Amino acid sequence: MSGVTALFEPTSVVLLGSSEIQEVIGMASPQLFISVIHNMKKYFEGKTYVLDIKEGKDYKKLEELPETPELAVIMLPPNVSVQQSEACAKIGVKALVAITGGYKTSQRQQLKDLTNEYDIRILGPNTIMGIINTTNGLNTTFERNMMPTRGGISVVSQSGGVGACLLDWICFYKIGAAKFAFTGDKIDVNEVDLLRYLNKDPKTKAVCLYMEGIENGRDFIEVAQDVVESKPILTLKGGVTEGAAQRALSHTTSIAGSDTIVDAAFKKAGIIRVENEEELLNAAIALVKQPILGGDNIAVVSNVGGPAILAADAVVKNGLKLANLAEDTKRRIGRQYPRLDVVNPIDLIADARADRFTFVLDIVLSDPNVDGIVVINMLKSCFFKPRDAVAIAEISEKHPSKPVVDVPGGGEDFTYVHKILQDTNIPVYNTPEKAAKALGTLRRRHRTRARTDES
Amino acid sequence: MSGVTALFEPTSVVLLGSSEIQEVIGMASPQLFISVIHNMKKYFEGKTYVLDIKEGKDYKKLEELPETPELAVIMLPPNVSVQQSEACAKIGVKALVAITGGYKTSQRQQLKDLTNEYDIRILGPNTIMGIINTTNGLNTTFERNMMPTRGGISVVSQSGGVGACLLDWICFYKIGAAKFAFTGDKIDVNEVDLLRYLNKDPKTKAVCLYMEGIENGRDFIEVAQDVVESKPILTLKGGVTEGAAQRALSHTTSIAGSDTIVDAAFKKAGIIRVENEEELLNAAIALVKQPILGGDNIAVVSNVGGPAILAADAVVKNGLKLANLAEDTKRRIGRQYPRLDVVNPIDLIADARADRFTFVLDIVLSDPNVDGIVVINMLKSCFFKPRDAVAIAEISEKHPSKPVVDVPGGGEDFTYVHKILQDTNIPVYNTPEKAAKALGTLRRRHRTRARTDES
Repeated sequence: MSGVTALFEPTSVVLLGSSEIQEVIGMASPQLFISVIHNMKKYFEGKTYVLDIKEGKDYKKLEELPETPELAVIMLPPNVSVQQSEACAKIGVKALVAITGGYKTSQRQQLKDLTNEYDIRILGPNTIMGIINTTNGLNTTFERNMMPTRGGISVVSQSGGVGACLLDWICFYKIGAAKFAFTGDKIDVNEVDLLRYLNKDPKTKAVCLYMEGIENGRDFIEVAQDVVESKPILTLKGGVTEGAAQRALSHTTSIAGSDTIVDAAFKKAGIIRVENEEELLNAAIALVKQPILGGDNIAVVSNVGGPAILAADAVVKNGLKLANLAEDTKRRIGRQYPRLDVVNPIDLIADARADRFTFVLDIVLSDPNVDGIVVINMLKSCFFKPRDAVAIAEISEKHPSKPVVDVPGGGEDFTYVHKILQDTNIPVYNTPEKAAKALGTLRRRHRTRARTDES
Repeated sequence: MSGVTALFEPTSVVLLGSSEIQEVIGMASPQLFISVIHNMKKYFEGKTYVLDIKEGKDYKKLEELPETPELAVIMLPPNVSVQQSEACAKIGVKALVAITGGYKTSQRQQLKDLTNEYDIRILGPNTIMGIINTTNGLNTTFERNMMPTRGGISVVSQSGGVGACLLDWICFYKIGAAKFAFTGDKIDVNEVDLLRYLNKDPKTKAVCLYMEGIENGRDFIEVAQDVVESKPILTLKGGVTEGAAQRALSHTTSIAGSDTIVDAAFKKAGIIRVENEEELLNAAIALVKQPILGGDNIAVVSNVGGPAILAADAVVKNGLKLANLAEDTKRRIGRQYPRLDVVNPIDLIADARADRFTFVLDIVLSDPNVDGIVVINMLKSCFFKPRDAVAIAEISEKHPSKPVVDVPGGGEDFTYVHKILQDTNIPVYNTPEKAAKALGTLRRRHRTRARTDES
């Protein structure tokens, strides 16, 4: 087993912390240690050992463990952490997660030297949250009981804060995830290593990256190109403006680089760049749940007029087109519902329930002039009930090659319908604009795939 | 009392519907009638009369009511609605809300003729939801128990669907509102009338408009210019792309107009244009809750590094600057917290609680180099607790001239902190980008005010 694989798939883990050491400003604390122990005991399917490092006192040592753990998680202040890391390397631990931050340059170098001298890979330091693997229950975060459901999204975040935000979002909306890796200061394991691993990971269907700086730019672009052939990569880049870039430099000791160069490199590699955390996950959900969009022609099927017009605007703004419905489509819908005005966007009128949506969507999804659909089913001002949304998922499954995204709109309406559809393949968004943007991402992914297939 | 005032402030209202008539596809139905009665009985502080129109049978007539109602709300199919509207006009009803849609051109003309012949103003038809006034409890919507709390935002929506979406959002997030008007087909009362009314309404602090077409463009721009001198207008325009514009035309019989012309006119009038429903409300919340932004210099105060960098990026992308903190600010914070690196964005580190936020925000808000602040207080990966957020509101109140916006980030974190802050003056957003955009809106409003004051 390689060191990077051991980060995610160890059979045994040792947690090194202290029930005594409390940093004044910093992460090392008894509470953090206890919380990581709690999560590992609760979720991890392998063997977990705990070593409580007490200054000046006797404590159980690494050598006394019944086996050599494959992974060590160290939650200690920098000086103690470096000592313990060396002890781990010496006994043959394959991978190490250095949770805490605040390392001096010399201390980071000491960790780096260990990776050169011994057969060990180190994630961090300053990773804060470490690793999550939903397949084996590995969870080195100190957020108690925050375990995503299993799903196809994997997240690599340089920032503990941004990663924690994404983890919170993924758990709260039950989005589902495969792997999480918080890279922190990246003295050893970086995005290149992690992309190589995720490329081979059968559970990972889409990769979400948050990064501030890029080391080994050429390697990164090369491996990204490889990954993109089979899995989409979505990237949120922080530190793109001058002031923020300077801060990013001091924050995780990496070089932010010119944003223009980054942008060009991302485009070349087929990486999809996004502007914020919400867009990152909205795009990933669409890519994991729905097929790619084979053409530009979108139908909007709605029970309200105004939001359908906003959806139509957003479709065009995202480089797509409003589909011209086939004559046969118009005829068949018109015969069943003579009072409907069958033009795209199609307004099913406020009293439409599951039966009308199913009938119309079945015909529109069969229309050769239509490549994908934005469905709008508002509850407020309409007769639609949350349970009617099940019909959207069911009819979409009958037409697996065309993407369907759903917009209930609003706050409460979104919450109700999202709850019904969260375990289905239908992505749910709270504005027509976000839904159209998701289709735009699915179209872009189709173009990248087509380019890859040609070469 | 003018007709438009009677739409919002009637002392007595008659509800005209039918417990018998159910349209096959359309809005008129016994359920709708019963739901509007429910809302009016529950919320309206004035007198409510109900007339149940039964075909071919005797029913209580308008003339038999003990007084002439000032407002009539008609929820009947077009032909019956036109008859009853005429009866209302004849007895001296001052204002009428025509809820249902599906009117023929000739029927719309009949309603229009009534407004010329009698002293009556008509909202609609096809308004769907009608009017809400949180001051007197008037609520002609059929969404049971959907009554916003009192607040400074007033909404005028041409679309029932978009308006319902905004209403849902405002109720769900307890944003607070003053007035709602759903204009529908606008055969008589339009945005010009409503803006004139809202301009004088002391409860309205900001106006949110959703419109597809503009009638009387010159009048609209003139009255908007008037309003903007004292209250901001935020506008979401639907039907801006060609396909959507054609649909808007058939949807509410209005002309969408060239988007370039619209954009120029909005700019001239000082109207702030937004791109979607969420942005509309995010901007309105900031304008109602916080002071305008007097300068470009923004400080970011955060308990996490990565999201602070994203905030810094977003500040610059929104045309603002990262403030250069005064030396005195750095010295005072550094003296209290020697391990903090006092540069902007200021990273208070993951273990910051209310006391550290209060101490630092007090100093930063006093810094003459700082005009406004993005606060980031994540819970996940941090020690911050939801109740700590109260401190942000309290310290902000001590510095009432500088806007403060808050970002808890994520899904659950946002929900927790929003619940604590929803009744305070601190706007809460779920991404740094939305918070920075809100400050951008407050800056823009400052510029519009400065221009107005000069002229």
